Amino acid sequence: MKKMGTHLVVDAWQAPADLLNDPDRIRTALMEAIERGEATLIDLCVHQFSPHGVTATATLAESHIAIHTWPEYGYFAADLFFCGSGKPEAAMALLQVALKAQQVEVRTIERGFPAAAKIPNELPLNWRAPVSLTR
Amino acid sequence: MKKMGTHLVVDAWQAPADLLNDPDRIRTALMEAIERGEATLIDLCVHQFSPHGVTATATLAESHIAIHTWPEYGYFAADLFFCGSGKPEAAMALLQVALKAQQVEVRTIERGFPAAAKIPNELPLNWRAPVSLTR
Repeated sequence: MKKMGTHLVVDAWQAPADLLNDPDRIRTALMEAIERGEATLIDLCVHQFSPHGVTATATLAESHIAIHTWPEYGYFAADLFFCGSGKPEAAMALLQVALKAQQVEVRTIERGFPAAAKIPNELPLNWRAPVSLTR
Repeated sequence: MKKMGTHLVVDAWQAPADLLNDPDRIRTALMEAIERGEATLIDLCVHQFSPHGVTATATLAESHIAIHTWPEYGYFAADLFFCGSGKPEAAMALLQVALKAQQVEVRTIERGFPAAAKIPNELPLNWRAPVSLTR
């Protein structure tokens, strides 16, 4: 296994419906989780559904965090995919407290591919990307 | 288990480095996958890293698709989280062909929570969200 990143797959429930339906509070929780996880935000989308439910996706230099809420069930799903540095467990701990989930199930998945897999490298040696943000 | 959605956790490798480093082609592949998966796009972020690597996150009415590429290893990670309708397997099949991955590992995770879990509902009956897009 060649590990490229750590992915926390989180199902959380027994959280207050009004909190899970508040895009501003979810945005704040997500930003605080990113800071706590020592990650770097590239882009953020927070969307409120009708009649209820919020989806928030944060594109990170480390990969992504996504949150989808079902206020009517007191449930939310969270994914925290971090490559390189960063502390996904710390970010998740903050999310659980901020969104007041009384129960969570966390599955930790190592992302990557078998070490024996063929690894092509077709990039020319003089190639440079136009964007400066590093991963 | 009360199922809220289906999540395909995909690791893919043996894909061409130049393709995995081309944000325009990844954007096109992602848009075609969303259409093939019968999903509805809310927001899209495509970002190129330096010296190489592309991250793309699509916020969907159904949840999200995220792709992170490591061109230097011919590797990409994809997550396709669909609640409700939509065809995540069809979307993934298109992605594999479009990004020319010769090998993929797909883990299918049912997202949700135990049926016996306490389900609070604190939403007032007269509450309405301001946005019309439904999930």
